[in-house]
Amino acid sequence: MINIGLLGLGTVGSGVLEILDSRREELKNITGHDINIRKILVKDLNKKRPIKIKPGILTDNFNDILEDKDISIIVEATGDLEKGYDYIRKSLKEGKNVVTANKAVVSRHFEELTELAEKEGLAFLYEASVGGGIPLLKSLKEQLALNEITEVKGILNGTCNYILTEMERGLDYFEALRIAQRKGFAELDPTDDVEGLDTRRKLRILGTLALGSTILEEDIVLRGIRSIKAIDIEYINKMNCSIKLIGEIKSYEEGYTAIVEPMIVNKNSPFYSVYYEKNAVLLKGDKVGDLIFYGNGAGKLPTANAILTDVIDIIMGLSKTESPVGTNKLENINISLKGKYYLRISKVSKNIYSIMESIAKEILCEKENIVIMTKSMLLNDILKLLKVLEIKEEEYFLARKEC
Amino acid sequence: MINIGLLGLGTVGSGVLEILDSRREELKNITGHDINIRKILVKDLNKKRPIKIKPGILTDNFNDILEDKDISIIVEATGDLEKGYDYIRKSLKEGKNVVTANKAVVSRHFEELTELAEKEGLAFLYEASVGGGIPLLKSLKEQLALNEITEVKGILNGTCNYILTEMERGLDYFEALRIAQRKGFAELDPTDDVEGLDTRRKLRILGTLALGSTILEEDIVLRGIRSIKAIDIEYINKMNCSIKLIGEIKSYEEGYTAIVEPMIVNKNSPFYSVYYEKNAVLLKGDKVGDLIFYGNGAGKLPTANAILTDVIDIIMGLSKTESPVGTNKLENINISLKGKYYLRISKVSKNIYSIMESIAKEILCEKENIVIMTKSMLLNDILKLLKVLEIKEEEYFLARKEC
Repeated sequence: MINIGLLGLGTVGSGVLEILDSRREELKNITGHDINIRKILVKDLNKKRPIKIKPGILTDNFNDILEDKDISIIVEATGDLEKGYDYIRKSLKEGKNVVTANKAVVSRHFEELTELAEKEGLAFLYEASVGGGIPLLKSLKEQLALNEITEVKGILNGTCNYILTEMERGLDYFEALRIAQRKGFAELDPTDDVEGLDTRRKLRILGTLALGSTILEEDIVLRGIRSIKAIDIEYINKMNCSIKLIGEIKSYEEGYTAIVEPMIVNKNSPFYSVYYEKNAVLLKGDKVGDLIFYGNGAGKLPTANAILTDVIDIIMGLSKTESPVGTNKLENINISLKGKYYLRISKVSKNIYSIMESIAKEILCEKENIVIMTKSMLLNDILKLLKVLEIKEEEYFLARKEC
Repeated sequence: MINIGLLGLGTVGSGVLEILDSRREELKNITGHDINIRKILVKDLNKKRPIKIKPGILTDNFNDILEDKDISIIVEATGDLEKGYDYIRKSLKEGKNVVTANKAVVSRHFEELTELAEKEGLAFLYEASVGGGIPLLKSLKEQLALNEITEVKGILNGTCNYILTEMERGLDYFEALRIAQRKGFAELDPTDDVEGLDTRRKLRILGTLALGSTILEEDIVLRGIRSIKAIDIEYINKMNCSIKLIGEIKSYEEGYTAIVEPMIVNKNSPFYSVYYEKNAVLLKGDKVGDLIFYGNGAGKLPTANAILTDVIDIIMGLSKTESPVGTNKLENINISLKGKYYLRISKVSKNIYSIMESIAKEILCEKENIVIMTKSMLLNDILKLLKVLEIKEEEYFLARKEC
């Protein structure tokens, strides 16, 4: 029997229980073991829960789990940065394999935790932390044996994509956000999602694996979707295009660029038909070419499914303990980021008009808003101009045209 | 050192050599072994080849490879149905693991070869046989531990997709076919591709794995794209849709349906933006939801890359020897296949007109061609009508509207 300690019994934790329960026989046939949730860490032992729990397996004391010698695998599903980190570190030091869905922890402590796992000869797996249910990181690690990865790019945040999809279907930003919240895709405080922080964490993990070089959150340019308005959607629709929040890391001879920003994609783009809470990730390998993985970026069962594929790999001895974090030293050349940009400014003056005209390839509107497509230019130069003109973040929307 | 016997030195075989050569160091670091191509089976020893081959490793006698005790892995890349089958069977019986890209062999002899491998305790892997470079079958097998798969569906043939893409860009069928042949995507005799036989082979493999039940080629309804004309593309374009040749297997309470046919997809479909030689495959799991895998369906390096991921799995002990072919007994209910169909008939008579009007939901054209969208109806009923009306296969084009 394989005993698991489950940390957290929220959406994801319940999903893990649900799947284990429904696939007991199949899992025994495949792995040769009964998989047993031996203890579950919760905050409140007396909380009413919609699922049936075996009596006596709940605890509000992490040490009960840590000190249980029969537990060999910890599934960390707290969603909490500080506690999650603490639990994972202690578990590895105590000789337990760890599976987590906690992208904030993996992003913040990737090098430390993967090295600790390697030192202890244990598995540390986090498939569910990027792309939810999509079997992405394992495939990426496999491709690395045969390929130089030159690009990773993806729609990595279901909340933003949900909001943008609803806006393209006619809602304004706040209506779309409210629906996303009501459906459980967006948090009450959506800052991490709409400002791109969540996408950046996932891109940091993906990029570090793909390029074999530590790429930190602060190495990634961050531009979210908070200032988008219905008028932007209108112009993007008129171009027969769609708007997505995309994280992108590219490697060149001279170094790498890394950015999270809104991107305008046309119908030839593989990201064009990725709607609502779906995620999609592109990997470009020098041998395999373009690979794209698409699926549910979040949700109870998809996320739990990803966690359990990691658990199965550990039980079957298919996971490596070596840290997958590479030691390449690459230069960050974000300063070279450039492209043709859609730019809408809601504050107008003669001064702004004439400067916008000077950088425009095409002027789409010059009324209460000025809307242009720029020539191909450095992102930095556009941002500098906006600063000089004293245009605040909420007064403009800037999105790169994909190609 | 791991010694490989390579069967065939065409496009795919050369790709295997090329990648092994360029990744020698990385592969040694990852697997802990030198990977050595010890012998290569070719038809003509004296043929001039564009690549450098170590002297003395070519042979035109398969037994030289079979009897070489130091060769533990056979990479079968002949592309030949009879010889490929013979070589694979003999290799397994001789105690050698086998990796193949040969979809015709895998489709025809799937149960026999997987059982033989299981009996001998050897690996038999064929990632490259479906979806070219896309890491698909391994992910599918992994999802099976946790999911009931209720649908597999995909663009599985690069040649057809290439032809259809070029037609949507303005070429007629024969021009598009000629370009596909010139670029090396289509064979001189394109029958297997355009009539859907190649798609059907891949669907047979996918479906057998996904449903855990043997689904043979003859269990799959087959309808290709040979009769498509520019006028069809015109009407499909007017619907803001795209046309793809799609293989689809769905499972229901009562049984399963399996079909290869042209399908009209709109811009919300994940297949919409799959162009040219690209492939894409959808898996629907009851836990993970929809997963889509996209990439190069063919080509020297992508196919060789897929072969070598199998080789690496064997070397690292990550491949199972149990046959993945399930023993579910499912009923074939293709008789229930139905949908709304686009139907163009190039032969006209009063009789045909009036019958077409009776099944039409919408009449798109009634001139030298009659073009309709049918009501939702059984495919069988449409095919029966066409037979009764004595309309030959080359006189009509029939494509299902995806949704």
